Amino acid sequence: MSPDLIGYGAAMLTTAAFVPQALKSWSSRDLSGISLGMYSLFTLGVALWLIYGILLRSWPIILANLITLALASLVLSLKIRHLRKQ
Amino acid sequence: MSPDLIGYGAAMLTTAAFVPQALKSWSSRDLSGISLGMYSLFTLGVALWLIYGILLRSWPIILANLITLALASLVLSLKIRHLRKQ
Repeated sequence: MSPDLIGYGAAMLTTAAFVPQALKSWSSRDLSGISLGMYSLFTLGVALWLIYGILLRSWPIILANLITLALASLVLSLKIRHLRKQ
Repeated sequence: MSPDLIGYGAAMLTTAAFVPQALKSWSSRDLSGISLGMYSLFTLGVALWLIYGILLRSWPIILANLITLALASLVLSLKIRHLRKQ
């Protein structure tokens, strides 16, 4: 196995992982166990990864982080809406 | 800002993000809103990132993913325990 292949597999899994969480949070609106701190830090971190990818003109980094940014932002906004309703 | 500095900042944020989630899941045992699919795919993905870092002998990748693997595994094991209790 080449390192590149393992790297692409890793990137696909850690990006795809946010699909079931975003779907679950969207459909169930069960956000009480979701950490606001996690999604705040994570969304900011992924935005930095996106800037890093743009500076390096690396399409794999740009695409993976653009998708993750959209999904993590959705969970974060659902969590903020959930806190405001309390 | 150099790309490297932005990359290190991004890595620190996306790693540190799992600390508040692991603490919240550990102390509240409120796992119903946590997606099993997300943490299964994510933990596997982070394990691949770790192997990628070892193959590349990159200490930043190894350390960041070792910490994230521990935290994501904790949330995943709490989620599995929560499902078994139901």
